[in-house]
Amino acid sequence: MDIKEFLELSAGKWFSQRTIHNLSSGQLLAGKSNLTIDILPENEPSIIQLCEHQHVDSGQVWKGLKFSWEGTVENDSKQQTGQAMLVPLIDENSPQEGQFLQTRPGSQNQTFKGRYLLGEDEVLVLITETDSFSVEERLWYLMPNLRLRTTVFKQKNGLTQASFCSEIRMGVK
Amino acid sequence: MDIKEFLELSAGKWFSQRTIHNLSSGQLLAGKSNLTIDILPENEPSIIQLCEHQHVDSGQVWKGLKFSWEGTVENDSKQQTGQAMLVPLIDENSPQEGQFLQTRPGSQNQTFKGRYLLGEDEVLVLITETDSFSVEERLWYLMPNLRLRTTVFKQKNGLTQASFCSEIRMGVK
Repeated sequence: MDIKEFLELSAGKWFSQRTIHNLSSGQLLAGKSNLTIDILPENEPSIIQLCEHQHVDSGQVWKGLKFSWEGTVENDSKQQTGQAMLVPLIDENSPQEGQFLQTRPGSQNQTFKGRYLLGEDEVLVLITETDSFSVEERLWYLMPNLRLRTTVFKQKNGLTQASFCSEIRMGVK
Repeated sequence: MDIKEFLELSAGKWFSQRTIHNLSSGQLLAGKSNLTIDILPENEPSIIQLCEHQHVDSGQVWKGLKFSWEGTVENDSKQQTGQAMLVPLIDENSPQEGQFLQTRPGSQNQTFKGRYLLGEDEVLVLITETDSFSVEERLWYLMPNLRLRTTVFKQKNGLTQASFCSEIRMGVK
């Protein structure tokens, strides 16, 4: 599977079950959400805007992934909703490794640049490093309708949390 | 990090927090355990015996890892204890990829042969395939005293379970 196939396979509606391990306090938390992933065309205004923010030529962009979710976390009755975007910059000479632009949940109006790597084992690794935090995400498909995702979120003031998601496709959008 | 360093780093006492996602029923379960990993020398009787079971020349063996744990799973007051063993067969010409022998929890008196791969991203992948199930385990260190582990267990009848462990070193043995 190449990077484009990998990303295109993510389009659709997913039911996501997540457990969050706080590695400092030892606390475990479970959450559930409905996640929709849309593939946006290169010329989408939100993608052009993200490129401008990051001073990247939008000609380098290969489409974009828009994530929208609503869900709940254990011990909190409040519905959580959010959106984020991931825009890969795929170099046709070395497509399996490159950069991406993104917006992240909880960091409204901020944009970030990161690195991706699709390994020979078909695990996609997404790395974002900033002055205040770093995130390493690993995604892989067990089958086209079932994927796993681990996320390690480290704050510069100490280690924070690791989370694990299993995501089951509920249908195409 | 080479495969021997990776394995030797696992020796010690760990506090392991696990969440289990049953991908058929959607059930989530949390568990905790104290895990001890001992490195055994090649000439340990249990290793020789494992080699004999699998008709493998014990001269190929690089030490062995013995896992012992006691812990609990959510909604079950019973203490769970268990032991398992992993014996890598390291080929000095291609040490990062090879085979291993093992005993598994819940499969007493049975031994298995599997494949390992330590990728360039320093994630160790352990794959065991049998007539009735397959297991793929991924382990990586965030730092020497903190590691993550995902396990995907598929039964041939369709049941699939994915689990995620965060393991914090509590000390050397």
